[in-house]
Amino acid sequence: MIIVVAKSILKEGKTEEFKSLTRELIDETRKEKGCIEYVLYEDTESAGTFTFIEKWEDMDCLEAHFQSEHFKRIGAKVKELRKSRDINIYKEA
Amino acid sequence: MIIVVAKSILKEGKTEEFKSLTRELIDETRKEKGCIEYVLYEDTESAGTFTFIEKWEDMDCLEAHFQSEHFKRIGAKVKELRKSRDINIYKEA
Repeated sequence: MIIVVAKSILKEGKTEEFKSLTRELIDETRKEKGCIEYVLYEDTESAGTFTFIEKWEDMDCLEAHFQSEHFKRIGAKVKELRKSRDINIYKEA
Repeated sequence: MIIVVAKSILKEGKTEEFKSLTRELIDETRKEKGCIEYVLYEDTESAGTFTFIEKWEDMDCLEAHFQSEHFKRIGAKVKELRKSRDINIYKEA
């Protein structure tokens, strides 16, 4: 199993737009082959900080996700809302 | 539900010591009240980068964890092995 932690820090005032844009991304992604878990979390202490925690069967499924139409289309829009992003790909230790 | 993402970047050559120290922390923590998930992940791309992804019933359970004997004891030792740590506490968006 592959775990992805993708943390985004948003530009001021972009939270609602980010939440609505990512709703479609979440719905479409959860239909993908090998997608075990795909959840968006909001930081309880610093406003505008969000993290996707994702679980995938293997790297091939994750790679296919990165190439999917919805990831590319929505990802391009979300990119405009972010100040920074930190992404790590993990396996169980 | 409360999610914790606690990312550690270790000092050179401390990986095995970190893994063995955290094994007891994981075993003890999983017995705690309200601990839904407590898993250690290793970065697939950057050596020495590890992340705990934790799921807790609520903030009270997490606070009790921070005050537990094993967290304090083992946490103090693990601190010596780290170059840096980044911890975020999340709720579902």
